Amino acid sequence: MLAVFGHTNPDTDAITSALVYARLLTRQGVPAQAYRLGNLNFETPFVLREAGVEAPPLLPELEAGSQVALVDHNESAQSVPNLAELAVVRVVDHHKLGDLTTMQPAFLRFEPVGCTSTILLKLHREANLSVEQVDARLMLSAILSDTLHFRSPTTTPDDREAAAFLAPVAGVEDVEAYALAMFAAKSDLGDTPAETLLKMDYKVFPFGDPARSQLAQARGVQHWGIGVIETTNPGYVLGRQAELLAAMDQARAADGLNGILLSVVDILNETNVTLVLSATEEKVLREAFGVETAGGRAELGNRISRKKQIVPALEAYFTPEA
Amino acid sequence: MLAVFGHTNPDTDAITSALVYARLLTRQGVPAQAYRLGNLNFETPFVLREAGVEAPPLLPELEAGSQVALVDHNESAQSVPNLAELAVVRVVDHHKLGDLTTMQPAFLRFEPVGCTSTILLKLHREANLSVEQVDARLMLSAILSDTLHFRSPTTTPDDREAAAFLAPVAGVEDVEAYALAMFAAKSDLGDTPAETLLKMDYKVFPFGDPARSQLAQARGVQHWGIGVIETTNPGYVLGRQAELLAAMDQARAADGLNGILLSVVDILNETNVTLVLSATEEKVLREAFGVETAGGRAELGNRISRKKQIVPALEAYFTPEA
Ligand SMILES: [Mn+2]
Ligand SMILES: [Mn+2]
Repeated sequence: MLAVFGHTNPDTDAITSALVYARLLTRQGVPAQAYRLGNLNFETPFVLREAGVEAPPLLPELEAGSQVALVDHNESAQSVPNLAELAVVRVVDHHKLGDLTTMQPAFLRFEPVGCTSTILLKLHREANLSVEQVDARLMLSAILSDTLHFRSPTTTPDDREAAAFLAPVAGVEDVEAYALAMFAAKSDLGDTPAETLLKMDYKVFPFGDPARSQLAQARGVQHWGIGVIETTNPGYVLGRQAELLAAMDQARAADGLNGILLSVVDILNETNVTLVLSATEEKVLREAFGVETAGGRAELGNRISRKKQIVPALEAYFTPEA
Repeated sequence: MLAVFGHTNPDTDAITSALVYARLLTRQGVPAQAYRLGNLNFETPFVLREAGVEAPPLLPELEAGSQVALVDHNESAQSVPNLAELAVVRVVDHHKLGDLTTMQPAFLRFEPVGCTSTILLKLHREANLSVEQVDARLMLSAILSDTLHFRSPTTTPDDREAAAFLAPVAGVEDVEAYALAMFAAKSDLGDTPAETLLKMDYKVFPFGDPARSQLAQARGVQHWGIGVIETTNPGYVLGRQAELLAAMDQARAADGLNGILLSVVDILNETNVTLVLSATEEKVLREAFGVETAGGRAELGNRISRKKQIVPALEAYFTPEA
């Protein structure tokens, strides 16, 4: 049985893509089971409830050599701890290719689109398989989630086309209303502890490729934690700035990071206010983005995509000659 | 203009895949130009002549940041020397994933099939593009070449299905006769210098993943050069054993390798006699394959696929705990 899972700190795409891909593979004669690598965020339970499906179980510890399929990620830092011992036989992803290697030739399908589910829809079509309503609803939700209903600069024509195809199959008549309900669920953070908010959509990135840059070689790989809170109610999150900065301070020390950022993204107004912990982060934000920090916050303007706007700028900053 | 190229020491698949993928991308609105990373082998000119197309030009030096598409390879050791400075935006390949990374999300299409061209045919179909006769001939030739007309254990049902579809489009009525003519051209080695024979289908592999194995960590990555001569006339090649061993000795020293092997594969009888340079290689062949060396040769039986039978066994040997 092939284990299919998305990244740690799973977002909606990481969960729904595991569910949809496991079902697709099983229909194609490759028995597969979806898993998750962590707790659901506030948006995904809404999506699963609307689709009428259960969350996938937490991934149990897999023995060395087990076959796995990765969705919505490929870097070891965002995957299961013993990934190096496992046999990665399939990957479907829309992120840049990191440190993944495979022991044998494998199925890899990466496209620079806004959402893994956009690629999964293509896989259904290429296999001449009909899209069932539940899968359509899961894929549509992931596309709306990852692209912030086409507001994110990661959005491509393929994502729009996929969503337009999926909405009627999913039985979603008013896509904008559905997306707003999803975003409202995601923004209903209640009294969630600051540590949880920080880590809800949080990834650690190794920056600076020593093979490409003398400066990176001298400095060594820099590990940065970058959290994002996408919300329709940024005031609520920013009102908890002191708590969040304390949680960031703790996480940076506990995870042995060189830097940590938490971007509060206003979904509807498409703006990003990033919390800045120390002079280290302040300097990097100034030099990589040309923005100043004031009162522990830096206004990153319309840079609302971590993948497309934050990470590439930091990678270019830490690997300057490439 | 996107530069498309296959691996160094190009085989037929590396050349034809570059030609076919560049044409496909151009038809899809992505202007692309095929290149090669070295001299043609003895089989490819026959294929190009039969298809009525010119060989792609040698890749000129590309400036840092240039966009490239890789076909039929992904490891930096088999690619252009300044690969780390280039922007890899597309890869179509059927080998295991090595040390490739990308700076941005990219199009990656890997499948564990016998030939890159089998994947390229799928790309035509998925794009609803007709296959032109010249492309059909190039893809069919590459499939017959990579799979030794389905004799190689790398052959998959997809390769057979692709070849069966392509043969009539290519106007090849007798596929077996065409394959034999290809193999005869490949085996007509004349007075080619031993160094050229060794390097004609030759790849350097880094074995032993320090992240997966304590022994590999202690020993460090081991670089092995592995040449293959696929021929219908193994007697001719083996008759030049002394010259070839001298060329191997020189290459091992010049390239700073830990070991070197040259497999002489009898295409029609599906057997592999491998030339063994020294006690180092002898020990590894004994421990990784359980075969003994005599008179500078080891009989590897029906292990005729470097990718499927030689490289995985060596990787497992050098990364024992994984
Ligand atoms: Mn995603
Ligand atoms: Mn090939």
